[in-house]
Amino acid sequence: MPSHLALLSCLLVLLLSLDKFLLHYLKRWLSGGGGSIIPRIPTGAFRPRSHRPMAAAGRWSETAMLVIDMQKDFVDPAMGSPVLVAGGEAVVPAVAEAVAVARERGIFVVWVVREHDPSGRDVELFRRHLYSGGKGPTVKGLKGAELADGLFIKEGDYKLVKTRFSAFFATHLDSVLKTQGIKNLVVVGVQTPNCIRQTVYDAVELDYEKVIVLIDATAAARPDIHLAFNILSFLSWGCTKSYTQLKA
Amino acid sequence: MPSHLALLSCLLVLLLSLDKFLLHYLKRWLSGGGGSIIPRIPTGAFRPRSHRPMAAAGRWSETAMLVIDMQKDFVDPAMGSPVLVAGGEAVVPAVAEAVAVARERGIFVVWVVREHDPSGRDVELFRRHLYSGGKGPTVKGLKGAELADGLFIKEGDYKLVKTRFSAFFATHLDSVLKTQGIKNLVVVGVQTPNCIRQTVYDAVELDYEKVIVLIDATAAARPDIHLAFNILSFLSWGCTKSYTQLKA
Amino acid sequence: MPSHLALLSCLLVLLLSLDKFLLHYLKRWLSGGGGSIIPRIPTGAFRPRSHRPMAAAGRWSETAMLVIDMQKDFVDPAMGSPVLVAGGEAVVPAVAEAVAVARERGIFVVWVVREHDPSGRDVELFRRHLYSGGKGPTVKGLKGAELADGLFIKEGDYKLVKTRFSAFFATHLDSVLKTQGIKNLVVVGVQTPNCIRQTVYDAVELDYEKVIVLIDATAAARPDIHLAFNILSFLSWGCTKSYTQLKA
Amino acid sequence: MPSHLALLSCLLVLLLSLDKFLLHYLKRWLSGGGGSIIPRIPTGAFRPRSHRPMAAAGRWSETAMLVIDMQKDFVDPAMGSPVLVAGGEAVVPAVAEAVAVARERGIFVVWVVREHDPSGRDVELFRRHLYSGGKGPTVKGLKGAELADGLFIKEGDYKLVKTRFSAFFATHLDSVLKTQGIKNLVVVGVQTPNCIRQTVYDAVELDYEKVIVLIDATAAARPDIHLAFNILSFLSWGCTKSYTQLKA
Repeated sequence: MPSHLALLSCLLVLLLSLDKFLLHYLKRWLSGGGGSIIPRIPTGAFRPRSHRPMAAAGRWSETAMLVIDMQKDFVDPAMGSPVLVAGGEAVVPAVAEAVAVARERGIFVVWVVREHDPSGRDVELFRRHLYSGGKGPTVKGLKGAELADGLFIKEGDYKLVKTRFSAFFATHLDSVLKTQGIKNLVVVGVQTPNCIRQTVYDAVELDYEKVIVLIDATAAARPDIHLAFNILSFLSWGCTKSYTQLKA
Repeated sequence: MPSHLALLSCLLVLLLSLDKFLLHYLKRWLSGGGGSIIPRIPTGAFRPRSHRPMAAAGRWSETAMLVIDMQKDFVDPAMGSPVLVAGGEAVVPAVAEAVAVARERGIFVVWVVREHDPSGRDVELFRRHLYSGGKGPTVKGLKGAELADGLFIKEGDYKLVKTRFSAFFATHLDSVLKTQGIKNLVVVGVQTPNCIRQTVYDAVELDYEKVIVLIDATAAARPDIHLAFNILSFLSWGCTKSYTQLKA
Repeated sequence: MPSHLALLSCLLVLLLSLDKFLLHYLKRWLSGGGGSIIPRIPTGAFRPRSHRPMAAAGRWSETAMLVIDMQKDFVDPAMGSPVLVAGGEAVVPAVAEAVAVARERGIFVVWVVREHDPSGRDVELFRRHLYSGGKGPTVKGLKGAELADGLFIKEGDYKLVKTRFSAFFATHLDSVLKTQGIKNLVVVGVQTPNCIRQTVYDAVELDYEKVIVLIDATAAARPDIHLAFNILSFLSWGCTKSYTQLKA
Repeated sequence: MPSHLALLSCLLVLLLSLDKFLLHYLKRWLSGGGGSIIPRIPTGAFRPRSHRPMAAAGRWSETAMLVIDMQKDFVDPAMGSPVLVAGGEAVVPAVAEAVAVARERGIFVVWVVREHDPSGRDVELFRRHLYSGGKGPTVKGLKGAELADGLFIKEGDYKLVKTRFSAFFATHLDSVLKTQGIKNLVVVGVQTPNCIRQTVYDAVELDYEKVIVLIDATAAARPDIHLAFNILSFLSWGCTKSYTQLKA
């Protein structure tokens, strides 16, 4: 059991209302307590023995942060988009802070966004009716496809365009990550039951060793949907232990 | 809204305790009332005007049934497998009946199974510790990989081997289905939050027009997990209408 | 034999020096003589009985043209790029004319281009040494990634970014094409033995019914390499007949 | 140039008539002279300094041998199959010996085979006319799908079923290889311009560091087709140096 937990993708589960607290925790974890999340190091690979900066750098170079769908049409109510995720706006500051901490640690930051053709010909079938007259959710070049206010792609970050739920579906994300030696993922963004979850499951199928969802930097339409995702995973994968492990 | 419902993958949601009732309903639906589930017919395709047998045959030839992971190690408690799905055994009769009805209607039946190398080298990383000494869950050739008692692959059915949650991950399933003109899927088997759900989402990403999960022929470890999956989808995709639509 | 030819991807083979003649032929073919290239029409689909404009429109709506890698770094010697394809510049006019004819017929035009990160982290391993100091072949935003002079993306066309040889590798191209009902492909661009050939073979694996390479609108480093590709395919697939079929 | 060669997939090119000589060479290479083919070792990985057995073991554990389509229908003229590769039978002994040497070195051997449904529903469109009455090329369970006489799958080897040219198309091969740390591939089997070449190019796209085609353990319909493949790659990728490198 411990060994499968060690390999399994896991979740941080805390009350949604404790954002401030969680971010502090996240920062502490990212700045040094993260040794426990990379339990399986391939034979011969660099194995740090202390918490010196260099050791940390080696460790985080194997981790990427996926920031998913943090675009105006998804998180900014002012856009009036039909694909707005009600809980999205509230986590923008948390996402911004998570990204800042990640950059500081040398974690590779990937901005996963949707950018669709004005015709809607590259969107899911069930959403194509939303596109007409050159407009529709996250059409490339329109304001709705831009990142939410307060979020920016910086030099060294990577922008990846997807057209379906999963960041891995019909994209070269796995190629970019694996050839850099990325083994662990931290996922933030919207929305929990669809794009977040589908990306997480694909990552497990693609054998990333650790896939962490930051519960306070992800969101869904409603808190109960957001939490239901985690409940499911707890029960079926038994990830609750990993939470304790991370907190330790 | 109605149009996106028409294109959207949907769910039948009824009380789990009403199995008998549901199967009767399913049979009735499969035998004629299914016209409403294929609302979007490509220009020029065969469009039936009555419920004559030929019309039905034309319609069902575009539908496939995916029977997922109904193997002894997953559903037979006697195997003592670590991957047993607690709720699995109870739905074996429902799956058997659903398959029988499907065959009767000319629906293409695909048995999606796991068959792993004794070394475990083709299983998810987090499950590899379960393989040693030539044994492990659903090892090819061992009893645990066989279909549950009462389920059989018949001539005309198709067996597809997968190595991850989704029936579409790293398999030729999409190729087999699309080149036959399959546009709609009916999904049965175990278990709801992982293999079932991942297959359903992949199917939506791959633009199958209808993806129906038969709620009484699928199962999870516990009823609340099984239902949580549906609750999620209801809330985020708004599929409740499809239930009414199917019943009509 | 006729039946497998009918389903097989084929090639136009004419002397490279006869460009002018070939384009005239191509235009004639695209404007009406193309009926023979779509021999297998699914039951019930629109089946034109004459060469009226409407019939042609119906037919060409199932065909897409893939324009591959026609970017300055690949075809413009003035760029001095290490990835220059020697024979590329000479076919720019032919590609431009082929695209013009395609648009006129209502064929969906897809501009397949490479756009790489300045770090080279999304390029093939064997090419990564070409990237440093924010520069390298077809880096996104730099001049070398632009289309060759004389080529333009127009409204209604589609731009698809790839990171490997094949237009289908880790992209959503198949998704865009299949959901539009595209069954046949016409391929132009550079270079024959790598990106062109790999795209063609992937298309055959993905079950496009017809994959036509326009021999005078594709190029390689040298004429013998360009032709060797066709010789290979002739001998192993027996496509020479299709040439006659197309000319007829 | 040396650096891109070092990363590039390469080819052994010798006269086809020198089989005996080549195999001796191959054996010598596999038994110790192979140090030069793994020039790029990730930071921190095991780097052997001598030719002691242990060092060799470490090195070869990162290499897999793909044996492609060595089935009766492809290489045994007695089967009278329409998919027979004329040059296939002649390389069976070479393939057998290459596999033996590979096993001896601890190289992971993968037997890539086609096994199709009797209906032909999982074969390429252009080959489906070859299937009827429960028969057709390499139908699962029929004699034509068996390995050629003299070839056997042993314990520790892996059998992988594919349905298209490439061993990577819609299969879990990449997943099996990458999670074992495989970085280099040696390819044998039939036939050069289709399944061999397509597999090799896919492997390059998937960022395997070295992809070696053993020219005397691969074959096509005719020697000139077999060689044309290599000529193409020489000219476009400049692999000739690798031949020298390997021979050294």
